[in-house]
Amino acid sequence: MSERICGVDLGGTKIEVVVVNADRKLRGQCRVPTPQDGGPQSVVDAIVGAVQAACDDAGCATKALKGIGIGAPGAVNAERGLLSRAPNLSGFVDAFPLAEAVGGACGAKVKLGNDVGVAVLGELELGAGRKLQSFVGIWWGTGVGSGIVLQRKMWHGRGAAGELGHTVIQRGGLAEPNGMVGTMEAYAGRRNMETRAREAVAAGQTSVLFELMEQAGKERLSSSIWSKALAQGDPLATQLIGEGVAAIAAAAANAVNILDVEAIILGGGLGTRFGQPMADRIGAAMRPYLFQPDKAPPVVTAALGDKGGAIGATLLVGAKR
Amino acid sequence: MSERICGVDLGGTKIEVVVVNADRKLRGQCRVPTPQDGGPQSVVDAIVGAVQAACDDAGCATKALKGIGIGAPGAVNAERGLLSRAPNLSGFVDAFPLAEAVGGACGAKVKLGNDVGVAVLGELELGAGRKLQSFVGIWWGTGVGSGIVLQRKMWHGRGAAGELGHTVIQRGGLAEPNGMVGTMEAYAGRRNMETRAREAVAAGQTSVLFELMEQAGKERLSSSIWSKALAQGDPLATQLIGEGVAAIAAAAANAVNILDVEAIILGGGLGTRFGQPMADRIGAAMRPYLFQPDKAPPVVTAALGDKGGAIGATLLVGAKR
Repeated sequence: MSERICGVDLGGTKIEVVVVNADRKLRGQCRVPTPQDGGPQSVVDAIVGAVQAACDDAGCATKALKGIGIGAPGAVNAERGLLSRAPNLSGFVDAFPLAEAVGGACGAKVKLGNDVGVAVLGELELGAGRKLQSFVGIWWGTGVGSGIVLQRKMWHGRGAAGELGHTVIQRGGLAEPNGMVGTMEAYAGRRNMETRAREAVAAGQTSVLFELMEQAGKERLSSSIWSKALAQGDPLATQLIGEGVAAIAAAAANAVNILDVEAIILGGGLGTRFGQPMADRIGAAMRPYLFQPDKAPPVVTAALGDKGGAIGATLLVGAKR
Repeated sequence: MSERICGVDLGGTKIEVVVVNADRKLRGQCRVPTPQDGGPQSVVDAIVGAVQAACDDAGCATKALKGIGIGAPGAVNAERGLLSRAPNLSGFVDAFPLAEAVGGACGAKVKLGNDVGVAVLGELELGAGRKLQSFVGIWWGTGVGSGIVLQRKMWHGRGAAGELGHTVIQRGGLAEPNGMVGTMEAYAGRRNMETRAREAVAAGQTSVLFELMEQAGKERLSSSIWSKALAQGDPLATQLIGEGVAAIAAAAANAVNILDVEAIILGGGLGTRFGQPMADRIGAAMRPYLFQPDKAPPVVTAALGDKGGAIGATLLVGAKR
């Protein structure tokens, strides 16, 4: 059997695992919910179980893997395999040796990367960015992450580039839980939209959002809930998503004015769920903010879909950095 | 005599010309006001006269120059030596063959570049950016231009990168004359600040700004007028400059959040006039908008001072692009 590589997309709500061959063709997969409490060890156990299941699906042993790449939300120390400051994960405040913990249990080498970074890397190498020299990836999900690709390389700056979600578009506007005011993510992040939806409903506004959530047996407003509510014309969902689109568009246009990239690639849970019609909406909403609207770059959706993060994470294995 | 190179900083209010040797040491100079009417030919005549005077100062003939570099405001076609869309210059709407016109009259080769681009290039090669891998240059003057330096190279994108002045920080806020709403330049551009000062005074607010302007025999609120009014504690000047600082800081922080550069370099007429204390003020005002305030990059003033644009323009001569 040719080589098998495992990729893990560690999200705040789910853990997506793929096993691919050297050509990154899918050979096995597994998706499990992310434990919401129990701390780092519970998250490690869930990852290890899902890696095992994906390997079973692919017909290989975890020990036979060439390696495991993990895209994780938060501050990643790639060299040392540490994850810290991941507010969407239970107990990952101080640096936790995630690579070592998963690697030890699976008997395989583990490389760690930032979740959005690996998803953008996946699009660069295998997806919508294959033929682009430069683009900005905007990953619209629980938060809004981004990745900057210039001359076909990820631009990391001093290590923390790509925080487009935390750029200000509306001074004095809505605040994020971290205290940053008027940022794009304050308007567009799924978590922040859910907070505002709860506040609006508590204040007496009607909406199908939370009924749909209960019917689906969920505790959060997932991408599919937002999508269903939009499809039903729910006014609150329409308003909040509209404000999110406007915020993403303003921040994306700022990035274009600064960097003049060839394209915007839209991914993430919400971005992937809504697809190209939403990318087109963002593209149209960008125009008033573009210095050169006649040279507006296209806004396209991520080509690797909802497994893009996990597939991108496989690119960490064997990579030089 | 060793080689002599001429650099021209073509601004909306003045034309600054330097003659340097191969090491970019100053050998001659001249500064003349930019003709406010008369169209492109009057601007060409003024440039040619100033180049002649700077060469006289340097003790060389214009024909003996290795070349003339011109940094010009507006849309520059460097290959063809054309300047267009320069609203701060009389009559430069359609493409005008500036390189050919100046070169023909001086008997020397002329290379054209964007005014802010050449000033940032000057800082990169000879000034505050000499030892930096990456920085964002912010040129605070009539407008607010910027230049992006990554891995010690100017980043041009598809040709129009660096429009930080036209990024939005306050949706629904103040508008620029070009119609763009809530951009940094709407708040911070000297021309826009002057418009608001005139409106405030017309509405009955008192200010020393226009008295100082008349005393100085000027028709515009130049950098020195703003500086004097600030020094006197003029409330209107204090308010408008304060709003400009806040706007520049928000946009600069956005650029840092996106690119995580090593420094911000502040230049331009106002930036150079106000100097490091103002750079420090901008640095402090950036912090609330930085995703990692503990890693705030320093904000430093351009080292080449008010001749930086002209000196930077000399780098166009002999450059590969």
